[in-house]
Amino acid sequence: MTFDIDLRLKIQDLNARYAEAIDDNKLEAWPDFFTEDGRYRVTTAENVERALPLGMIYATSRAMLRDRVRSLRDANVYEAQRYRHVVSPPLVEAEEGGVVAAQTSFIIARIMHTGETTLFATGRYQDRIVFDDDTPRFAEKTVILDSRLIDTLLALPL
Amino acid sequence: MTFDIDLRLKIQDLNARYAEAIDDNKLEAWPDFFTEDGRYRVTTAENVERALPLGMIYATSRAMLRDRVRSLRDANVYEAQRYRHVVSPPLVEAEEGGVVAAQTSFIIARIMHTGETTLFATGRYQDRIVFDDDTPRFAEKTVILDSRLIDTLLALPL
Amino acid sequence: MTFDIDLRLKIQDLNARYAEAIDDNKLEAWPDFFTEDGRYRVTTAENVERALPLGMIYATSRAMLRDRVRSLRDANVYEAQRYRHVVSPPLVEAEEGGVVAAQTSFIIARIMHTGETTLFATGRYQDRIVFDDDTPRFAEKTVILDSRLIDTLLALPL
Repeated sequence: MTFDIDLRLKIQDLNARYAEAIDDNKLEAWPDFFTEDGRYRVTTAENVERALPLGMIYATSRAMLRDRVRSLRDANVYEAQRYRHVVSPPLVEAEEGGVVAAQTSFIIARIMHTGETTLFATGRYQDRIVFDDDTPRFAEKTVILDSRLIDTLLALPL
Repeated sequence: MTFDIDLRLKIQDLNARYAEAIDDNKLEAWPDFFTEDGRYRVTTAENVERALPLGMIYATSRAMLRDRVRSLRDANVYEAQRYRHVVSPPLVEAEEGGVVAAQTSFIIARIMHTGETTLFATGRYQDRIVFDDDTPRFAEKTVILDSRLIDTLLALPL
Repeated sequence: MTFDIDLRLKIQDLNARYAEAIDDNKLEAWPDFFTEDGRYRVTTAENVERALPLGMIYATSRAMLRDRVRSLRDANVYEAQRYRHVVSPPLVEAEEGGVVAAQTSFIIARIMHTGETTLFATGRYQDRIVFDDDTPRFAEKTVILDSRLIDTLLALPL
């Protein structure tokens, strides 16, 4: 394994832009972080350990993510809450065929419209990233939550 | 836009030293992270969205920051509490004229003298940085808090 | 001081792998992050300021860390709780003799088996790292907790 500095920083940058789009209410930009047939899954550590394939949220294309954004806008979810992601520097490994595997720990705080702030979710991203020209995109993003107690019904993207 | 590795890591390093000065009670070093006429502003996301120019704290020179440090020392603020900043890797963009724009998400925990620890503040830094020889300094640092419920009267630097 | 990009990213990577081993229940891998006679100490900021040498946990070899892992396994600590570390980018300084000093801020969330999530600990790592061929290992890792109110009796590695 070579230690590819450039690659690491590009993944780190991707993570920062991804979180910024969500936290800064630029939700329409969110699907563009994925490839056309990119998969987005939200599950729990417990499910992963038991090798249960299904998660709480599962989308298999950018079009499905766009639908989700529309639903969230219709439900005025951003009126009620905002998020703040803080992420660690990622673990990055180049795989064959130009795919990059990355794992990133995160903490998400939720800030209600009243100002009340709580520790909303913790976990890790397990991502498979491909480069479209020089632009990295998620071919697969699995959000593995540490806790099984989370209300994802109206959740913003994680 | 070129992807400047060196620049990214220098901004990341600046953020780490900035947070360390505050968290490690080296408050007298804090003004030196700013240029002579550097601006430091604390505001909320709500204010920014409404384009309200004023924040809760506003300083327009290193001398004003020095005054603030003296007030905090006189009030023995560090006796009562300490902070812990955890920051994400920054988003960095080189602008014209040698100015660098950076945006960084943060979570700050507050640890009271009794040991009680709470999630004190979340938000993002919006910074404009210039290089003085090889030393980066804040020409402008805007602390945008996610919540409007925060007691900044006696707050340490954020 | 030269600004060594490669070194910074290797320390960042070490921190990410260290946290992943703990958070992902790969506890048996934990001692291998230390040199054979590596020291691991958990203490508080208050103790450090008073220059009290002893901490709450003190181990002076990889063998002692292995013993600790066995105790934690016997006590089924992972059945009851898991951790999530989120760390800032580190402050890194090369010292003489190939030793690297690094300081890293962390927040650790604790997730109980019931799903309940709390802000468990905050603080900083003060590390001295040596390279064994190309593999960085902790010759010394001091975990300095911000709060003195922490139950470390059955704590996982921090």
